[in-house]
Amino acid sequence: MNNNEKALMLHEEWKGKINTTSKCDINTREDLALAYTPGVAEPCKVIAQNPEKAYTYTIKSNTVAVVSDGSAVLGLGNIGPLAAMPVMEGKAVLFKEFGGVNAFPICLDTQDTEEIIKTVENIAPAFGGINLEDISAPRCFEIEERLKSKLNIPVFHDDQHGTAIVVLSGIINGLKLTGKKKEECKVVVNGAGSAGIAISKLLLTYGFKNLILCDKVGILSKDTEGLNYMQEAMTEVTNPDNEHGLLADALKGADIFVGVSAPNIVTADMVKSMNKDAIMFAMANPVPEIMPDVAKAAGAKIVGTGRSDFPNQINNVVAFPGIFKGALEGRARQITEKMKLAAAEAIAGLVSDEDLNEDFIMPEAFDPRVADAVSKAVMDNIDEDNRNDR
Amino acid sequence: MNNNEKALMLHEEWKGKINTTSKCDINTREDLALAYTPGVAEPCKVIAQNPEKAYTYTIKSNTVAVVSDGSAVLGLGNIGPLAAMPVMEGKAVLFKEFGGVNAFPICLDTQDTEEIIKTVENIAPAFGGINLEDISAPRCFEIEERLKSKLNIPVFHDDQHGTAIVVLSGIINGLKLTGKKKEECKVVVNGAGSAGIAISKLLLTYGFKNLILCDKVGILSKDTEGLNYMQEAMTEVTNPDNEHGLLADALKGADIFVGVSAPNIVTADMVKSMNKDAIMFAMANPVPEIMPDVAKAAGAKIVGTGRSDFPNQINNVVAFPGIFKGALEGRARQITEKMKLAAAEAIAGLVSDEDLNEDFIMPEAFDPRVADAVSKAVMDNIDEDNRNDR
Repeated sequence: MNNNEKALMLHEEWKGKINTTSKCDINTREDLALAYTPGVAEPCKVIAQNPEKAYTYTIKSNTVAVVSDGSAVLGLGNIGPLAAMPVMEGKAVLFKEFGGVNAFPICLDTQDTEEIIKTVENIAPAFGGINLEDISAPRCFEIEERLKSKLNIPVFHDDQHGTAIVVLSGIINGLKLTGKKKEECKVVVNGAGSAGIAISKLLLTYGFKNLILCDKVGILSKDTEGLNYMQEAMTEVTNPDNEHGLLADALKGADIFVGVSAPNIVTADMVKSMNKDAIMFAMANPVPEIMPDVAKAAGAKIVGTGRSDFPNQINNVVAFPGIFKGALEGRARQITEKMKLAAAEAIAGLVSDEDLNEDFIMPEAFDPRVADAVSKAVMDNIDEDNRNDR
Repeated sequence: MNNNEKALMLHEEWKGKINTTSKCDINTREDLALAYTPGVAEPCKVIAQNPEKAYTYTIKSNTVAVVSDGSAVLGLGNIGPLAAMPVMEGKAVLFKEFGGVNAFPICLDTQDTEEIIKTVENIAPAFGGINLEDISAPRCFEIEERLKSKLNIPVFHDDQHGTAIVVLSGIINGLKLTGKKKEECKVVVNGAGSAGIAISKLLLTYGFKNLILCDKVGILSKDTEGLNYMQEAMTEVTNPDNEHGLLADALKGADIFVGVSAPNIVTADMVKSMNKDAIMFAMANPVPEIMPDVAKAAGAKIVGTGRSDFPNQINNVVAFPGIFKGALEGRARQITEKMKLAAAEAIAGLVSDEDLNEDFIMPEAFDPRVADAVSKAVMDNIDEDNRNDR
């Protein structure tokens, strides 16, 4: 039995990967009278007087909705809400297992932006945070932005920001190893979808100055046609030298390559055209933009992928559980750029100077320190005016 | 510390009464690769090809949404979605503890009928059933009816139908004890809200012929003014002798009283005006329409209330967990009148002829046979054309 067959068999055994379980024993009439009627009326009355008390008496303090419309699931595309369920359940499992955060999958039977926003707003009371997942670009940008402005709980599109945080943490350690300075690096991000755009934004916030965003058409510049509104906005803050051409042109003299695009589109010659000690994150799944051995042979110093069978796996699981854990415990209204940068630094910081080397720039997914370190960094960087309990 | 203080203290300790837990261990990279990427793509692909397979590979087969807008919570009224959370969490706990059914609270930040319908439709993919709860009348009727017509999973407003089923089961045993025939009984239901109307409908379906529905205005008849559309519809099928007057008038010569109304509104004299061996369910909470000792002294043979400290508690927990368990396992599209009647008969049937007496007409809430007996009766009464897997 190969792994795909095994995964299918296990999913049939599990019949869904999460359970809802009771925190209270219900064995006697008295138990029932305390957890349900008539005793339950007491916390209801207190919350009705002071809504803030929902955080004291209900699951809101530690529960996240994993919301998807099934429009951009893994590499499978628009497979719809039912078929997206196994992924959202899996995400809910990871929230709990890695971060101790309760999470429940909400798969939406609509792909209309307005309806998605309204539905998430309507179900928000039970939740302390909203993790958006596998929603296609550019709808995902508007949905996240509008929900952030409407809700006073964190809304976080993990495909964007989780990925960006983990990439940045890898780059932070890559710069340590190569001795390069962020202000002097040329960065090329290939793939101008949700992940690529979020990565570009976070790298710019971190302090990179010369970043070029590419897509199937090649380098995005102010005169590229057919861009969506978010890609267009990105041309205002990227590509400062107004370069034109294809990915191969962009990579000439580049120090860092980040691929969230397609298999095998970077050649050895393109790597050779990059600067010395190039850092490359080739995250197309399951087949990366360039295989690590090819990239290394062509001169790249550090290569990361999305795969667990190569060194330096870029895996969101080191970020989102701790990020929500910290945001919930710290009662953040939003997950800000400052909190994201702190999370990236915390992840990077878990690799000690002695351990840090070309094949070990990221902590292991199962490193038990990760969620707590990320959560603490996130909590420590919640501004006073970003707390929803103030 | 009294029980209210204890309930509040416990709710603070629990910080929410349910957890989401993982059914699968995630301890190694291989675990991760099977429960999440890349293995998770396999069940996704199968479901994308055949949506029916969501019942094989996801939580849909055994998970219910407990949906409320917080508009009519317990006796507390319109306290809103956040304050309703402790009740909906409690209900989710009971689903699991009594029926083995996973349940998650969905408290809606809207009380607009159209928005509620749309929101529940949109979140339906993750769920195998929808339990509506504590939604005010008459909105609850339209919301339930329209959702039933739109969704192919069971939608069940427990305040209506759960209550009706349990009342009917008590009446079935009451008739056994008193030797009365349903066709010859006069029934008075006081309280023409969601529960009272659903009770009336189910009793008529069961075979009662002479049923009078009363509300604050007194007896509902075809010329009563100010009724909502559902109350008006009920005047077409109730009150066959076109009686007029107050509750006291209705009760003259009645055999059965069902109260879902207000404390202390039935007097000893009113009981005395009823037929011999009257059956009375006085379910106003926490103070019933008439105290059991007063009703008994005035000649009532059987008295039930909503309270656990008196005999014959009318408690929905003997119904809804088993009803959903059976409906989910039998893949029912809807919970039909036939299934409800079967559930009531099953509950009544759990009290053996030897045990049956005036103070023991209902099985105990903690009787371990209840959920399985109800679930089996429900499953056995799912018509072929009511299965959503056919």
